[in-house]
Amino acid sequence: MTFTSKLLAGAALLSLSFGNTLALAAAPDAHATEARFDASISTADQLAWLKDFSSAPNHVGSPHDKHNAETTLALFKSWGWDAHIETFSVLYPTPISTTIEMITPQHVTLGGQEPAVPGDDTSSNTAGALPPYVAYQGDGDVTAPVVYVNYGMPDDYEALARRGIDVRGKIVLARYGAGWRGLKPKLAQEHGAVGCLIYSDPANDGYAEHDSYPRGGGRPENGVQRGSVQDMTTYPGDPLTPGIGATADAKRLTRETAPTILKIPTLPISYADATKLLAGLEGPIATGKARGGLPLAYHYGGTGAVTAHLAVKSDWSMKTLYDVIAMMKGKTRPDEWVIRANHRDGWVFGASDPLSGHGAMLSEAKALGALAKSGWKPERTIVYASWDGEEPGLLGSTEWAETHAAELQRKAVLYINTDVSERGFLGAEASHDLQHFINQAARDVTDPETGVSVLDRQRAHVLADDFDTGGGEAAEVKAAKAGGDIPVGALGSGSDYSSFLQHLGIPSMNLEFAGEDASGGSYHSIYDSFYHVTHFDDPGLVYGAVLSKLVGRLVLRAADSDVGPARYADMAGTIARYVGEVKKLADDQRAKDLSREELSAAGDFKLGSDQTDPTIAPSAKPTTPLIDMLVLEKASDRLMRSAASADAVVAKADMLSPAARVKLDADLRGIDQLLLDPQGLPSRPWYQNMIYAPGTLTGYGAKTLPGIREGIEQRRFADATAYVAKVAAVLNAYADRLDMAVKDAGK
Amino acid sequence: MTFTSKLLAGAALLSLSFGNTLALAAAPDAHATEARFDASISTADQLAWLKDFSSAPNHVGSPHDKHNAETTLALFKSWGWDAHIETFSVLYPTPISTTIEMITPQHVTLGGQEPAVPGDDTSSNTAGALPPYVAYQGDGDVTAPVVYVNYGMPDDYEALARRGIDVRGKIVLARYGAGWRGLKPKLAQEHGAVGCLIYSDPANDGYAEHDSYPRGGGRPENGVQRGSVQDMTTYPGDPLTPGIGATADAKRLTRETAPTILKIPTLPISYADATKLLAGLEGPIATGKARGGLPLAYHYGGTGAVTAHLAVKSDWSMKTLYDVIAMMKGKTRPDEWVIRANHRDGWVFGASDPLSGHGAMLSEAKALGALAKSGWKPERTIVYASWDGEEPGLLGSTEWAETHAAELQRKAVLYINTDVSERGFLGAEASHDLQHFINQAARDVTDPETGVSVLDRQRAHVLADDFDTGGGEAAEVKAAKAGGDIPVGALGSGSDYSSFLQHLGIPSMNLEFAGEDASGGSYHSIYDSFYHVTHFDDPGLVYGAVLSKLVGRLVLRAADSDVGPARYADMAGTIARYVGEVKKLADDQRAKDLSREELSAAGDFKLGSDQTDPTIAPSAKPTTPLIDMLVLEKASDRLMRSAASADAVVAKADMLSPAARVKLDADLRGIDQLLLDPQGLPSRPWYQNMIYAPGTLTGYGAKTLPGIREGIEQRRFADATAYVAKVAAVLNAYADRLDMAVKDAGK
Repeated sequence: MTFTSKLLAGAALLSLSFGNTLALAAAPDAHATEARFDASISTADQLAWLKDFSSAPNHVGSPHDKHNAETTLALFKSWGWDAHIETFSVLYPTPISTTIEMITPQHVTLGGQEPAVPGDDTSSNTAGALPPYVAYQGDGDVTAPVVYVNYGMPDDYEALARRGIDVRGKIVLARYGAGWRGLKPKLAQEHGAVGCLIYSDPANDGYAEHDSYPRGGGRPENGVQRGSVQDMTTYPGDPLTPGIGATADAKRLTRETAPTILKIPTLPISYADATKLLAGLEGPIATGKARGGLPLAYHYGGTGAVTAHLAVKSDWSMKTLYDVIAMMKGKTRPDEWVIRANHRDGWVFGASDPLSGHGAMLSEAKALGALAKSGWKPERTIVYASWDGEEPGLLGSTEWAETHAAELQRKAVLYINTDVSERGFLGAEASHDLQHFINQAARDVTDPETGVSVLDRQRAHVLADDFDTGGGEAAEVKAAKAGGDIPVGALGSGSDYSSFLQHLGIPSMNLEFAGEDASGGSYHSIYDSFYHVTHFDDPGLVYGAVLSKLVGRLVLRAADSDVGPARYADMAGTIARYVGEVKKLADDQRAKDLSREELSAAGDFKLGSDQTDPTIAPSAKPTTPLIDMLVLEKASDRLMRSAASADAVVAKADMLSPAARVKLDADLRGIDQLLLDPQGLPSRPWYQNMIYAPGTLTGYGAKTLPGIREGIEQRRFADATAYVAKVAAVLNAYADRLDMAVKDAGK
Repeated sequence: MTFTSKLLAGAALLSLSFGNTLALAAAPDAHATEARFDASISTADQLAWLKDFSSAPNHVGSPHDKHNAETTLALFKSWGWDAHIETFSVLYPTPISTTIEMITPQHVTLGGQEPAVPGDDTSSNTAGALPPYVAYQGDGDVTAPVVYVNYGMPDDYEALARRGIDVRGKIVLARYGAGWRGLKPKLAQEHGAVGCLIYSDPANDGYAEHDSYPRGGGRPENGVQRGSVQDMTTYPGDPLTPGIGATADAKRLTRETAPTILKIPTLPISYADATKLLAGLEGPIATGKARGGLPLAYHYGGTGAVTAHLAVKSDWSMKTLYDVIAMMKGKTRPDEWVIRANHRDGWVFGASDPLSGHGAMLSEAKALGALAKSGWKPERTIVYASWDGEEPGLLGSTEWAETHAAELQRKAVLYINTDVSERGFLGAEASHDLQHFINQAARDVTDPETGVSVLDRQRAHVLADDFDTGGGEAAEVKAAKAGGDIPVGALGSGSDYSSFLQHLGIPSMNLEFAGEDASGGSYHSIYDSFYHVTHFDDPGLVYGAVLSKLVGRLVLRAADSDVGPARYADMAGTIARYVGEVKKLADDQRAKDLSREELSAAGDFKLGSDQTDPTIAPSAKPTTPLIDMLVLEKASDRLMRSAASADAVVAKADMLSPAARVKLDADLRGIDQLLLDPQGLPSRPWYQNMIYAPGTLTGYGAKTLPGIREGIEQRRFADATAYVAKVAAVLNAYADRLDMAVKDAGK
């Protein structure tokens, strides 16, 4: 499901910290183990698995999805793993019929399956494939005028309102991008629209950056992006079983009462189809960042000039998920689990998403199996998982995590996730106490295109990109300039780490390579194929092998090291930065509010606008108050000091007595669960992590200190104040535990 | 010639100053005069003149251009002015033949006259019209591979070099925008290209903002922008007579020795034609700001895949210019001239450019004539001028100014220019001592669309735009927030003020209304027509009348006020800002140099780039040294104090004895000429003004403190240091004169 251009969008990636080096840098025999591991990684294997797994449609409920589960199970077993398939029963809609027609100014039938492309063999073999649709939209049949709403995000609706355009009773036409797909129909229905069309604009994943497929990897004019629109910002997983596993006998909601299923019919379309609708629209013209890359003026429309008929009817039956779970028992710490997973289901052939990452995972499992056969055994238990049903809403991972929640909170020390991964630069998002751990591994893997380490290439990319784009003050640029660790990004959502991090408080990471590929152009279409991946995204799967080597080191080191992989000062320093951000957010928003009120009172918005296309003042909003954050600043400040002390103790753990070391390890294990608040976030109790959440208005994009930050942004100022106290409380609990560990170690 | 989107581009427009109010706010009887003036302004007149003047092609040398001169002369005479036509003989090339063909991958004939458009009557009447071409390119006949160079500006060539692409021996395809048209072939020939094509990309003046003509005012797919590519940044005017008038017996250069004529064949084309060339290009893809709005991936090309044949043959004969000069003698100060002008020649029908501004000027002249007939006479002499030959290179104004240079430097107190003017917000660029004068007039004219003053509307526009674009610290925003005068922009080039300001040192201004029009879409094409102007740019010429009222006030107040219109603190404060800018420029450029050197040495540019499309390090450049600017800072600081003292004396001028007042006026008259240095700017001695010049790499865009600023930017550091001293010297001379005036007034 993940499709990150985080790396390219310059989001934070990889905090200079305080110099203590954990015992994670591999010891000499660990180096030898890692070398043997590397020797088992085969791009030929990965190419063969990719070809086989992507040979037929493999969405939830398809025969080939089940077949791939069985193949995966057989592979794990053949490599000596203790593996099984765990099933869940979930509500998963598939289309019975999808209808899109332009009614006025003339009748034109739109939509339908994407056409075959020469050279791409699977593209002509779409029997059994899902047509373009979005899962968990609201079935319905509507005919209404079409309104172009740009990305369909909140600022777009504000812009529409300032032009006097209203979407009530209309079908909105939104382009993909700027926020998660599912927010587009959700915001549309909240604004009174009766239907929603989402199209792929060539400015976003087409000819603006690549030649159209198959000349290049860019999305062709008839390509369509499928996807889920389930309201996963409320909770992910099976809509009927929030917070519990979707086992056979689980107590279920009904489809009608499930809050994560949307209400209005919604379909995705190609830009060839969108062009036909856009061409006839009337009214004000969207310019600048409000327009896409099609060769016409983007009118907002909303008049009767262009009306469309949109109808969706779905099969809402229950489907079976097939998660493959494989375990390699730890010899000294079997009840400490290092979990590594990737999903296996795709929207159609899923070669890039998810099979690029899944193949890298299989390579690691094979190599670990070979190590085990040659005598090596992990200290901790290693768990590999091949999730089903990620695409419709992280179903397989969420149901498994909910089913095994208590055990996971007791045993899981780390969750490593991958998903789409292609050619290019390392993109890493993680719990920030894992930052140094990731940097150390990236230091020890060679980038195949340049011969330097993955870390050095990442550092060069951050610095060169900063130079070329005019110089920024982003955390990763400062860190790269100082020569320290490259900061990792915060985890939002869009792949299977969500339950582990945000519901259970398990330290998590998500890794990918990207930046030299064109996988955006095939994303969630029939063109996400073996041909596309091997021609445009990662020819020879060279970076598939690099991903295996990087993740393999992380698994081996996490499984075998004496102490946990965390460096607490990185977490504390990053949280201190977030505290600074939310303070600045409140200050800046207040200043902007005061300015807006002044200009509105003076009539300056109206006077200052083009009178041929007048824009009225932004709507009145409650003024952002001064918010007292002292308790939070104190807690963050204290945490910085406690973290530095704890890191100093951990760095010298090998000088402790064995008993003291055991005590230290026990004190620190599960510490990240102290960042949970059992009441969760406002209106979404499933999300318990007070540091990281997917933004309710960003979807995949992370919001850090979400209770506070979204309270301010969404003007729920009482919530913001309440969560200042809650966040301060979890930070103090975390610091208490660090202090206890330091004290215990000194005994 | 001017086509400013300065207003829209957010360039500085209209400095809070020190609160002295000159005697420029109209006295009671002046108010009555201005009211009578306003009553004579007629949009019906302006519509009739626009219809007549734009009825046939009116470029230099055309029968209708001469006819319009004679009509203008007759009108002035009919209104009681002392008017005559003054002629000059200039080298002005017109095409004999223009050829553009795509040779590979297939033969396609491109180019030729623009097609008629339904509804636009004159568009089907192009007999005698110039075909698409650019004046003063270099005739030639070449066949070569085509390379897309984005805007063809220096940073584009740097980007090409970093991709390993070279334009030597090739034909460059540049899009209009980002810098003046003439720089595109000039930089192309400097980089070794053999030909240059310039096309209008729809991202810049087409469907990105407007429906295509005639549905809207945006440039249609077959629209082409003509223009001059004469190297006017060296000197404007007739290429054969730099610095002297192109009179019958002037000593002339030859065409071969004239440095402002370019060397390589160059033609402008439509985006329909450009698309045919772009579609076949190979090689790396230009993305982000390097691409335009056409529906394809913009490859850089340069391989043999696309070759073109480009040939231009011109008639290089001498042509006659017809400047119409009309005078109304001042009753008490006949040897003090207030000059107001607009050009009259167009590229084809020229309805917007220049007849929109020319019609407003005629309205003023008629109204001033009516005032004179009713008994009012100006104190100073008023000179109105209708320039010919502005389009090919400011020919009419430059030759007149050069011919009458000594008299103008003795007599001219002010030069007011207009050119294209349409519907919307006031855009004002001027010598900064005129800032308060312009603000006062804008305060006293009502904006017809909103009913508030032109100044209040401008202020609202600055504030609302700043709010919507995220908040800036631009000088005009600060001033607008503080409620003070809105800063005026600096004058570069692109219209007829250039000789007056930059060669002769006469205080000048250029005024326009813009921001609600679509005149960019017809600019320099056959579609710049009565139909286009009255449908899209200024229906009813409502703003034509506003321009007349605004300029009329400026003319009346400048002609009749006791003391000159200057407020010196505005000049001094603005120059202090420029001094801060050039210091920051040097510091920032040095920091960037050091960063580039460090990253280059580490190999980070190569490592950090996409290896599938590698970019090498930027070329090595001399490191920007630390430049001592203390003498300049001291001079600027002194000028601030001297200006404040002088303004205080001027503000109380009515309390001085008549003799002291005469002395004060005499001391201050011509003071702006002290900002000239007779040696001029490096490599362009014609440009003598040390404060304002068109940038050698921006063309129309102003460079302030150009000797220093361009010395730094272009790494001529010895020049930068030398011009620090020269600028300090002219500022000290200016301050000396102010100090003398203060001293004399105190006697």
